[in-house]
Amino acid sequence: RPARTLNEVLFFPSELACVEHIFTSLSSCLCPLPHSVETSLSRLLRRVLSAASSLDLCVFAFSNMNLSRAVLALHARGVVVRILSDRDYVAITGSQIGVLRRAGICVRCDATSVHMHHKFALVDGRRLITGSLNWTLTAVQSNTENVVVTEEPDLVRPFAEEFHRLWERNDPA
Amino acid sequence: RPARTLNEVLFFPSELACVEHIFTSLSSCLCPLPHSVETSLSRLLRRVLSAASSLDLCVFAFSNMNLSRAVLALHARGVVVRILSDRDYVAITGSQIGVLRRAGICVRCDATSVHMHHKFALVDGRRLITGSLNWTLTAVQSNTENVVVTEEPDLVRPFAEEFHRLWERNDPA
Ligand SMILES: [Zn+2]
Ligand SMILES: [Zn+2]
Repeated sequence: RPARTLNEVLFFPSELACVEHIFTSLSSCLCPLPHSVETSLSRLLRRVLSAASSLDLCVFAFSNMNLSRAVLALHARGVVVRILSDRDYVAITGSQIGVLRRAGICVRCDATSVHMHHKFALVDGRRLITGSLNWTLTAVQSNTENVVVTEEPDLVRPFAEEFHRLWERNDPA
Repeated sequence: RPARTLNEVLFFPSELACVEHIFTSLSSCLCPLPHSVETSLSRLLRRVLSAASSLDLCVFAFSNMNLSRAVLALHARGVVVRILSDRDYVAITGSQIGVLRRAGICVRCDATSVHMHHKFALVDGRRLITGSLNWTLTAVQSNTENVVVTEEPDLVRPFAEEFHRLWERNDPA
């Protein structure tokens, strides 16, 4: 029978647990957090890290170190990463956008609206991650938030077009 | 053949146009805005007004007068409306939560997280409206935002459970 279309919802705040095993194959971590626990954050990180060819990210606020580490790992293994962010938030303390740009990732800042308030990502152009969650520590650990992960083409296609439209509109060249 | 599952995406900022015709059957409005134009806001208002039995709304910021008018219209025609909002935002100037509560709508404020940052609504328990959009004027008119409308059961069910969980958790009784 045909595989069902992926449709998943993650809720936050995420349970607090170590995510080191998602990044490294270390068998034993000595940090004081709980281990071997699947959380909304660990599921989100896995979804981001599942990118094989591209990650298009459109996010208002990006200061979360774990999500930044995931994006840097994708870039390091040759995945094409493009990030569109809000021009005001980029200047805020703790923003990871500067770190990502200095690593060689292509970043553009939206200057066409009061706030570029989207929080979505397209993985390999066919998996959509979207919701209320900014990529910050407060959003992940302290807020009540949601993230939808879907491969439904009728949802993925409009977001892919929106990314393309905003990316072209903010071309600095 | 079977009807396809509803999956729709609305992007904002919305084009500026009159929405009077959505609320009244007046054939001619004299306001200076463009008329007879379908916009993201008019589509969102129609989705909200399509409720026949219930509207469960979980929204961080609610100050938009048109969306407030739609919710009041639902309440007036007997639709059961429940609103869960953020306790800090409720106190802010322009919040419509007080107006809705005084009209007799059941409102609860989340006191269990730093911010109740969801922005979703369940129409008749089977249609989900969710995204980055707060129900404010700035979000609708000035920000780059998205709203997903879906009847996909795998997405609707978790949000219905989340609403139930948060509603019970914030029972003032
Ligand atoms: Zn650890
Ligand atoms: Zn008018």
